[in-house]
Amino acid sequence: MSFSIRKGEIKDAKAILGLITELAVFEKEPDAVVITVEDLIKDGFGEAPRFKTFVAEENDGTIIGMALFYERYSTWKGKTIHLEDLMITASKRGIGAGKALYKEIMKYAFDNNYKRVSWEVLDWNTNAVRFYENTGATVFKEWKVAQMNSENLENFIHENI
Amino acid sequence: MSFSIRKGEIKDAKAILGLITELAVFEKEPDAVVITVEDLIKDGFGEAPRFKTFVAEENDGTIIGMALFYERYSTWKGKTIHLEDLMITASKRGIGAGKALYKEIMKYAFDNNYKRVSWEVLDWNTNAVRFYENTGATVFKEWKVAQMNSENLENFIHENI
Repeated sequence: MSFSIRKGEIKDAKAILGLITELAVFEKEPDAVVITVEDLIKDGFGEAPRFKTFVAEENDGTIIGMALFYERYSTWKGKTIHLEDLMITASKRGIGAGKALYKEIMKYAFDNNYKRVSWEVLDWNTNAVRFYENTGATVFKEWKVAQMNSENLENFIHENI
Repeated sequence: MSFSIRKGEIKDAKAILGLITELAVFEKEPDAVVITVEDLIKDGFGEAPRFKTFVAEENDGTIIGMALFYERYSTWKGKTIHLEDLMITASKRGIGAGKALYKEIMKYAFDNNYKRVSWEVLDWNTNAVRFYENTGATVFKEWKVAQMNSENLENFIHENI
């Protein structure tokens, strides 16, 4: 079984959304995905893309994995890359596609002079944590992710403003 | 003592960098800030700004706090806002400027149809965690922040690519 890595294109949007949904199920949030293929196309492949992608493609054209990333800004370091999703479909794990996508992201960041690559990982996903740490990345213990979701944002606005 | 909230401008860049540095000291990373006033001006106030800011300004024109934020993209929800820094200078805490900046960010996100506001918080900063949770935000226990820093990125590239 062999595969190659390339930039994602509009034609991959449906496969990318399939992988996003599969990842949400793995992360125990099966109902969290509300975006559509049309949203992905508009947001990622239009005139002002909000993200970029790489895909892992088998020789027959099947998309088996993807990495989705965009720029952030560190007030300490300057421009950085955030890896939002990195996902290989369950039946295609163990053939090196995940590491190949990870390397492609790191190479992109290095070649384009980004000062950091960041992402988020679930602490019970110990295989992933171990993999990341073995590559030289740091998984921080003290930093917590905080979010105001859409519903609570609306409540906050109505109560406070 | 009274203050007002407004959008940050080029003339505020030096004060903003002062607050960034003060925040880094508070976060026990005093040497982490490598960006300069010139970087901030170029990156935040040029033709394609990488971030936006709000500042809290006293009546005499002194900048006592700032919030720095930018867009991210959720593969579940679509476009989101990330609040990178929210900081009030130590001598001006307790007068409501932090909450005023926080409300301004939430209002900006709500008015512009963003689907989430995210940020990161140190778990030992219990005052901040409590404040955020009281506003309806969630501080996640399972999600960890992971980063590949510049030096380790270079090592990874040299060893793997």
